[in-house]
Amino acid sequence: MISLEMLYDAQRVLRDVARLTPVSSAPKIGENIYIKAENLQLTGSFKLRGAYYKIHSLSAEEKEHGVIACSAGNHAQGVALSASKAGIKSIICMPEGAPLSKVEATRNYGAEVVLVPGVYDDAYAKAVQLVEEKGYTFAHPFNDERVIAGQGTIGLEILNQLPDVDVVVVPIGGGGLISGISYAIKAIKPECKVIGVQAAGAPSMYNSRKNGAVTELDSVSTIADGIAVKKPGDLTFELCQKYVDDIVTVSEDEIATAILTLMEGQKTVAEGAGATSVAAVMFNKIDVKGKKVVCVVSGGNIDVSILSRVITKGLTKSGRIAEFTTKVMDKPGQLINLLQVVSKTGANVMSVVHEREDEKSEINSCVVTMVLETRNMEHVKEIRSLLKSKGYEVF
Amino acid sequence: MISLEMLYDAQRVLRDVARLTPVSSAPKIGENIYIKAENLQLTGSFKLRGAYYKIHSLSAEEKEHGVIACSAGNHAQGVALSASKAGIKSIICMPEGAPLSKVEATRNYGAEVVLVPGVYDDAYAKAVQLVEEKGYTFAHPFNDERVIAGQGTIGLEILNQLPDVDVVVVPIGGGGLISGISYAIKAIKPECKVIGVQAAGAPSMYNSRKNGAVTELDSVSTIADGIAVKKPGDLTFELCQKYVDDIVTVSEDEIATAILTLMEGQKTVAEGAGATSVAAVMFNKIDVKGKKVVCVVSGGNIDVSILSRVITKGLTKSGRIAEFTTKVMDKPGQLINLLQVVSKTGANVMSVVHEREDEKSEINSCVVTMVLETRNMEHVKEIRSLLKSKGYEVF
Repeated sequence: MISLEMLYDAQRVLRDVARLTPVSSAPKIGENIYIKAENLQLTGSFKLRGAYYKIHSLSAEEKEHGVIACSAGNHAQGVALSASKAGIKSIICMPEGAPLSKVEATRNYGAEVVLVPGVYDDAYAKAVQLVEEKGYTFAHPFNDERVIAGQGTIGLEILNQLPDVDVVVVPIGGGGLISGISYAIKAIKPECKVIGVQAAGAPSMYNSRKNGAVTELDSVSTIADGIAVKKPGDLTFELCQKYVDDIVTVSEDEIATAILTLMEGQKTVAEGAGATSVAAVMFNKIDVKGKKVVCVVSGGNIDVSILSRVITKGLTKSGRIAEFTTKVMDKPGQLINLLQVVSKTGANVMSVVHEREDEKSEINSCVVTMVLETRNMEHVKEIRSLLKSKGYEVF
Repeated sequence: MISLEMLYDAQRVLRDVARLTPVSSAPKIGENIYIKAENLQLTGSFKLRGAYYKIHSLSAEEKEHGVIACSAGNHAQGVALSASKAGIKSIICMPEGAPLSKVEATRNYGAEVVLVPGVYDDAYAKAVQLVEEKGYTFAHPFNDERVIAGQGTIGLEILNQLPDVDVVVVPIGGGGLISGISYAIKAIKPECKVIGVQAAGAPSMYNSRKNGAVTELDSVSTIADGIAVKKPGDLTFELCQKYVDDIVTVSEDEIATAILTLMEGQKTVAEGAGATSVAAVMFNKIDVKGKKVVCVVSGGNIDVSILSRVITKGLTKSGRIAEFTTKVMDKPGQLINLLQVVSKTGANVMSVVHEREDEKSEINSCVVTMVLETRNMEHVKEIRSLLKSKGYEVF
């Protein structure tokens, strides 16, 4: 059974292995809002804590057999580094299509990576098969009391770093992180609220709570891949029912905006899952008025190509990139005239596509699509008005 | 005259105003490499330190008149917040084309912003004019001993946070930051090396050092806008000559790679200037073998649209985005055939442009340009080979 003693034991065990990550104020997100930066944890996510404590707690015989896990993400790296630090062998089954950067990171932390053709479920089946064949110890990503106790050390740290905290906001995937944190918080400071956050595209714990029973989703879809879990564990569900005050959901746009805000305001890189806690506060899913709030940013392992898309989307939404489509006559000098109008507005041209044939264009005209760097929404409107006043149709 | 006593005084004055920024290990950059994260300083850069200490040191009469500064960047925000914290008025002259986000940030910190038509030099002339007309106190961004003493507190902190440091690497623009840091380091631990880094596109202190005298550049060009300074100060030049062991330069590509590495490896957002110290270590501009090295990451105020470009460039260089141009026959089904070949490689299509008219295409063929998300350079080569083996020309 999980207990406060077990959490303190985990804290002692983790002292020389995990980083004590900072709790820092986040004035750009809101007054009295703080970030617990587990994206700065070794391996880039909190997963190291639970994985290491679990591995440390294995019997000598279990350790000798080595551990196996199945993951394409943070759990893989957490288990790999933990096993290396504990001096034991680890095998990680990953679906063949896993991003190469994650495969390499896992190998660099010392694991033997088994690439399994197919998707996550195939990799999982392979791991189960290898457990049976070779006697490896299976390291579950969340539904395990030692794993939960390891993650719970984050709760102990928060209470130590910000004793007068009123609300702790925690991302939920399988529920291991929030189970541990809420257990710690309610054991020591029961008046402090613990709120869970899920992506609206993967609301497994949210639905399970509503249904009063563990419920499996048919599918999940979110940029927050770290919490795209179809079904919570029975143990984590039970702990959430007991210790978590509420669960809310956030949309993909809200998650993207939170990632961008963390980059611009906090200079920190969060992955989608990690940013959900901040998104919940930014978009008023939680009552934080007059309260000291800690958002747990659970990880920072976001693919930079996704980050690039998030930035582009955020720039468009805030009027710092704008696309204009218009028409010009199909004769010399027309594109120059158009670009001269644009240049007067101070906008910077990122791309121009000038096409003769298009369903929008008449036989004697061309369609021009321009992507411009703009200052803000006002600036975008100003350019649109100027173009119209000069006789350009703007689509 | 600057003195160790003045630095300690600055440290005392700054205690309740500036953040004690962390020194953290950066294993992804190298063994025994550490980051002093001034990008996590309030206002997103170290400039707050010098500005606040300067303002705090003004006479009651000078304070009453208010301070004025000229900047489109970090100095503006540092002065604005410092003046607000000290309860005095601040005026910041900015060139009209300054990014709106920076104008707004400066206003939000409490300054009165004067937008001056023209470029930086025009804004500077306006500030000088206002000093004469209104009696404001001019706050120089670097060539001022109080400012230098304020920045020097970073050196005191590094020696405290990592007493066995062997090398400290510091970005140089006007030279205020490195003057303060090198003064502190050499006063307390003279055997510790202090190395300066400039962008190769703005090597004003580097050239001045080579020439043995303050030298002005005709022009500067770098994404590291925070250190794009044409001419160092006489005071900062003199201090650099005395206390800085060496100055090296880094290229634009090296700076961009360092920004990307800091994001992926350290989960932290650095601006171009801030990343130069890391670039110098990553690209072997400095002998760091067997040494404990602290790279000062001076700021994190990078425009996200620049960040987006840095990411795209980094992705292309590392083979995670690739562009292919090929030809297909101008008849139905040809594009499908091509895309089927591509899809077999596991690459993800980002964009396809299919054009009939182009100098590369014969009368009966079309040019197709595809941008693909790829895994790495191996993957890019594999796709190229497969396309060729299927009879596609690849340009």
